[in-house]
Amino acid sequence: MTKVYISNVGMTKFGRWEEPLEILIEQAINNFYQYDNSQKFDLNAIFFGAMNTDEFINAGNYSTVVADHLALTPVPAVRIETASSTGAAVFHMGVLAVASGIYDNVLVIAGEKMTANDTPKTTEVLAKVISDNERTYGATMPALAALITQRYMHDYGLSRDTLSEVAVKNHYNGSLNPFAHFQKEITVEKASTSKFVAEPLRLFDCSPISDGAAAVLLTSKPTDVNVAGIGQATDRMELRFRRSMTSFESTKKAAESAYKNSKLTPDQISIAELHDAFTPFELISAEDVGFYKPGGAISALEAGETELNGVRPINTSGGLKARGHPVGVSGLAQIIELVWQLRSEAGKRQIDNVVSGLAQSTGGIANNNLVTILKKIDK
Amino acid sequence: MTKVYISNVGMTKFGRWEEPLEILIEQAINNFYQYDNSQKFDLNAIFFGAMNTDEFINAGNYSTVVADHLALTPVPAVRIETASSTGAAVFHMGVLAVASGIYDNVLVIAGEKMTANDTPKTTEVLAKVISDNERTYGATMPALAALITQRYMHDYGLSRDTLSEVAVKNHYNGSLNPFAHFQKEITVEKASTSKFVAEPLRLFDCSPISDGAAAVLLTSKPTDVNVAGIGQATDRMELRFRRSMTSFESTKKAAESAYKNSKLTPDQISIAELHDAFTPFELISAEDVGFYKPGGAISALEAGETELNGVRPINTSGGLKARGHPVGVSGLAQIIELVWQLRSEAGKRQIDNVVSGLAQSTGGIANNNLVTILKKIDK
Repeated sequence: MTKVYISNVGMTKFGRWEEPLEILIEQAINNFYQYDNSQKFDLNAIFFGAMNTDEFINAGNYSTVVADHLALTPVPAVRIETASSTGAAVFHMGVLAVASGIYDNVLVIAGEKMTANDTPKTTEVLAKVISDNERTYGATMPALAALITQRYMHDYGLSRDTLSEVAVKNHYNGSLNPFAHFQKEITVEKASTSKFVAEPLRLFDCSPISDGAAAVLLTSKPTDVNVAGIGQATDRMELRFRRSMTSFESTKKAAESAYKNSKLTPDQISIAELHDAFTPFELISAEDVGFYKPGGAISALEAGETELNGVRPINTSGGLKARGHPVGVSGLAQIIELVWQLRSEAGKRQIDNVVSGLAQSTGGIANNNLVTILKKIDK
Repeated sequence: MTKVYISNVGMTKFGRWEEPLEILIEQAINNFYQYDNSQKFDLNAIFFGAMNTDEFINAGNYSTVVADHLALTPVPAVRIETASSTGAAVFHMGVLAVASGIYDNVLVIAGEKMTANDTPKTTEVLAKVISDNERTYGATMPALAALITQRYMHDYGLSRDTLSEVAVKNHYNGSLNPFAHFQKEITVEKASTSKFVAEPLRLFDCSPISDGAAAVLLTSKPTDVNVAGIGQATDRMELRFRRSMTSFESTKKAAESAYKNSKLTPDQISIAELHDAFTPFELISAEDVGFYKPGGAISALEAGETELNGVRPINTSGGLKARGHPVGVSGLAQIIELVWQLRSEAGKRQIDNVVSGLAQSTGGIANNNLVTILKKIDK
C-alpha cells in the first residue's frame, strides 16, 4: 500500500467533440473542481498524458500548453506516453512523484482529440504503435487483435455469440453512464452480424475512436481512496516473439506487482475495469489478472458473473467498448470509474459494497500494460 | 539533497548518423555498460525521453521499442516529453521514481533522430513546440529567439562580436570533446559574418540539428555523485505574455527550487551546462540561475570567467552549440558532462576541483525549463 491517495476526479463525456483539446481538458478540470469545491491545495506538478498530440492535433510541447491554458504556470508540467496505456502510465508517474515526498499534490490529466483529422489519417497514426516490421506486412491494431481472437476462440471454444455478450454487457453498462460515448443497449444479434473489421472481429467487437479528457488529483494527505498497488510490465513488440497468443505476459507481471504492493489477492477485488479495446481482450485480461484460469472467463461471462449484479462486475463504466477510447485517456478514465464506485457515486450503475477495484490498461498490442489497485479507506 | 545517486553514464557522439534510432540507443547503452563493467543491478524501470519519434522517425510506442531492442522486457518503460528540455525532464522523473522508494534502479535514456527526414520537415516538426497562435504569424524557434536577442542586445549593450565569443568559446570546448557534433574551433570573425538565420541571429549563433542518444543509471545506493537538487517551472506559451523578454522566469523558478533542495548557493557551483540552443540564451541563463545580475553575463564572458580556465566554466562540453542538439537528448547530455567533470573523466577539457555542477535546460521558447544540481560525494 502506497502513501498516495486520490482526492478530486473529473472527466468529460467521451465522444466526438467539435471543441479543441484544450477546451476538453478545461471541461474535465471544471468537473474536477466542482467535484469538491472545498478542496484547497498547493499544486506541485501537472502530469499530462496523451498518445500523440503532434499528429492528432498538430501541436507539441503540450504539457506546457495545458499548464498555460489552465492558468497554472509556473507549476512544473511533464508529458507521459506509453501508447494506448498512457492514461494509466501518467497516473502511475503521479503516484511515484507523490510517493517520493518531493511533491505532495500532483494533478494528473489525460486528453486526446482523435477526430480532428479524417479517419484514414487517424488509423495511420494509431498503427505507429505497432513495430515497423509488423507494419511492413500491413498489420494494423485490429488485424493483430484478430489473430489473437482467432487463436483464443480456437483454443477455448469461444463462440461468436458468447463473444458478443461482452459488447452487450458493456453497452448496457454504458447506457447507465452519462460520460459514455455510446449510451445505447445492443443485442447479441446486432453484434454478431455487424460488419467485419478484421475477421473474426466485427464492428461491435471494436472500441470507437473518441475524443475526451480526464483529471485526477493525487495527494499525500489521506482521503477515502488509497492507491493500494501499482504494477507495470513490457513485452516483446511483435506477436511472433510471444510465448502465448491468448495471454498477455505484460498484464500478468503488472498484476503480480500490483497485488504484491497492495497485499490483496484477486479474490479480494470487488470490481474491475479491463482494457476491452477489442471484446476478447476483456476475457483475456480477466484471466491474466487472476480472476479466472485460462479460458475460464468464457463460462463466467455466460453465467453473468461479470455483469452489474454479478459476483465481480467488470467494466461497470461500459469499458472502452461503450464509454469510448480516446487512446491516451482510457487508462485514467478506468481509474475514475473505480473511484466513483468506491465512493458510491456511480449513479444507476452503482455496485453495492465496493471496497477495492482493479484497473488494467493495455499499451500497443499488449506490450506495455499497467495494473492499478485502489482501496477504500474507512474514515 | 535527494537520496538519489548516479551510477553508470554513457552517450553516443552527437552528429549525423546513418543508423536508425534504436542503434544509437544501443550504442549509448554499450558505452554505459563499458563505463563500469563491475556494476550489477536489478533494473526496475526504463524512463525514455524523446521529443517526437512519431514524426522524426515515424514510430510510436517507443519506450516499449527501447525495452524490446535492449532485451530488457518485461522491465516497465515510460516515455517522457517536455519539448527541447525532454532530456532533463526524463532525468527528473527518474529521480522522483527512485526517491519514491518504489524503484531502486532506474535507467534513464534519451534518444532523438532528427536527420531521417529532409530539413524542411524537421523545421516544421520543431515549430510545433510554439503556440498555435504564434505559428499563425509564421514564427519559428529562431525567429522568436531573434526577438529576444534583439531586446537583450538593446537593453544591455551586447555587441555582435561579444555575442560571437559565446560560439567561439563553445566551439573551442567542443574541439576537446570526442562526443561533440562539431570538434573544430571557429573565430569571432567567422561567427560574426556567417549568414543570417533570423536577424540578428547568424548561423553560428544557432545549435545544429543532430542525432544522438544518452543513458544514465539512477540508483538509491550511494555513489560518488549525488543528485543534490532538481527544479522545474513552466511559463506562458507565448512571448507576448511574459513580463520580461531578456530573462526566463521558468529558469529562475526552477533554479530557486534546485538551490533550495541542494542547500547550495550559486557561488558554490563549480561548473554549469546551460541551454545555448541560441548563443544569447547562454548569457540569459547564466543570469537567470543567479551567476550574474541582469546583463552581467556580458562582462563575465569578455573577462573569460566562463572559459575552461575561468572561475566558473560554462558549457565545458561545447554546449548545444558545438556538442550538438538532438532535441530530446541535450538535457541528459548536459548532466553526463557534469558527471564526467565531477569524476575527473572529462579528458582534455577537465576542470580542476569540480565539487558541484548545475545543468539548465530550456523547453520550447523557455516555457518548460529545468535545473539540476549534482554534487560530488567523498567516499
